[in-house]
Amino acid sequence: MTNTPRIHKLVIIGVGLIGGSFALDLKRAGRVDHVVGVGRSLGNLERALQLGVVDSISQDAANAVADADLVLIATPVGQMAGVLSAIAPHLPASAIVTDAGSTKRDVAALFRTYLPESLGRCVPAHPIAGSDLSGAAAARYGLYEGRKVVICPLPETAPAKTATVESLWQQCGAHTLQLATQEHDAVFAAVSHLPHLLAFAYMNSVLDRPDAATCLALAATGFRDFTRIAGSHPEMWRDIALANRDGLLADLQAFRTELNALISQLQDADSAALGERFARASAARAAWGKPRG
Amino acid sequence: MTNTPRIHKLVIIGVGLIGGSFALDLKRAGRVDHVVGVGRSLGNLERALQLGVVDSISQDAANAVADADLVLIATPVGQMAGVLSAIAPHLPASAIVTDAGSTKRDVAALFRTYLPESLGRCVPAHPIAGSDLSGAAAARYGLYEGRKVVICPLPETAPAKTATVESLWQQCGAHTLQLATQEHDAVFAAVSHLPHLLAFAYMNSVLDRPDAATCLALAATGFRDFTRIAGSHPEMWRDIALANRDGLLADLQAFRTELNALISQLQDADSAALGERFARASAARAAWGKPRG
Repeated sequence: MTNTPRIHKLVIIGVGLIGGSFALDLKRAGRVDHVVGVGRSLGNLERALQLGVVDSISQDAANAVADADLVLIATPVGQMAGVLSAIAPHLPASAIVTDAGSTKRDVAALFRTYLPESLGRCVPAHPIAGSDLSGAAAARYGLYEGRKVVICPLPETAPAKTATVESLWQQCGAHTLQLATQEHDAVFAAVSHLPHLLAFAYMNSVLDRPDAATCLALAATGFRDFTRIAGSHPEMWRDIALANRDGLLADLQAFRTELNALISQLQDADSAALGERFARASAARAAWGKPRG
Repeated sequence: MTNTPRIHKLVIIGVGLIGGSFALDLKRAGRVDHVVGVGRSLGNLERALQLGVVDSISQDAANAVADADLVLIATPVGQMAGVLSAIAPHLPASAIVTDAGSTKRDVAALFRTYLPESLGRCVPAHPIAGSDLSGAAAARYGLYEGRKVVICPLPETAPAKTATVESLWQQCGAHTLQLATQEHDAVFAAVSHLPHLLAFAYMNSVLDRPDAATCLALAATGFRDFTRIAGSHPEMWRDIALANRDGLLADLQAFRTELNALISQLQDADSAALGERFARASAARAAWGKPRG
């Protein structure tokens, strides 16, 4: 973390929880001189400015990146093609481009499409700090403290650029680790994307009931926690689902196989098999919870 | 809540989170003179005694209920037949019998089987304060503050006995409401039993992966909350699943229909349909969360 280049101008495209919290921590640490917030919603940008999340704002990404040292694209992945296409001709040769998308194979492909001559300074990354909150008002100091940030450098990415991005995330208190894009997407299909889709599906299955209102009135803490991620940003999750479609379809089908086995054992009232099935899950979840306190 | 009969001797059969917390609050409020804890595990009973959750302990339910005013059966539902069969011949004629099981049609049927002449003093109930914690050490003051307790009186239950049980739960800070056993079971299949089974199934689907260890190492807050209930007591949930089998099977199948529609839309990369599906769930979850703060 020593001798990493100072960031004079950081451009955050998409000033929400993720991009805004990154800006806040780096500004407080004095690692950046000036942060420009770029986005589609003027209201959100003005809120970001007012809250001190960014130092200036712009709705013109091409213009904003003109003298940037580092550009963080923190929009939903579905908007990144538009962003990259707009900024590519205007990026200074020295600027590092990184992102915060929840899928990485598609982002790597976008870098190849829009910055084919500049892959050495493209650093795909994924901070593991999702939340059902969005917008500049959700940004906060310390969001990344103790969190993991997965860096997925391309084969072409210059190690020094990767190191700079890693050091910035470490400055925010995060632990960084590297994975190949393919490996990243398989793991996050399983531990993040699949649960979100299941939570959305479950929520819809409750809403379809004639007694939905009574159900929601009596739902308690189990329901609260199980469905928290069903409150997530629908557009973002639609993009993630489509971006990671192959892996996610495989996982959805594997889950359906597990579900079918469970339904069949319940139909048979197979007490021993059900008990074993629940005990395996319960023991693993208890063991997972422990080292995290 | 005024003029409700004083409870001289309260017998708690199954001294865990639910039964133990009920005893703690009533003892502190001076609503009961003496609490006897009954259970299978001597170690757990001794812990309950040591922690002041109960005033005396017994492994002999039949003997313990001999001069009880009120008996709360707070064991897993699967053990209730054994408990009722053991205590039925020894219950004093004036004792109220209530329970804390998560299913109510089966408990009502057990009362009819084991206490057919005494249905007037049987008060099936369900405090909505489940947790993944169990054992006497999990008992705590104030667990029921602001929680709901569903009372499912039988057609034969004497209103005065229902009122006594309601007033005790209200003394613990709970809001009580009445539902028919059938209606209760349908609602809780949807908002509690189904999510538990889905969480168990999801956890098992992750464990089946060859990269399960990496997955668990990178799983974050979404996973944590979604799977919290997968850490629940396997034996208890096996019993609940079997007890509420018909309703739960219908709900599992409705969920599978929703899942199939989602898989099919993802296969078709139907962005508009997926966005609509997620938006409906997200809006409903956000609205649900609001009045609860």
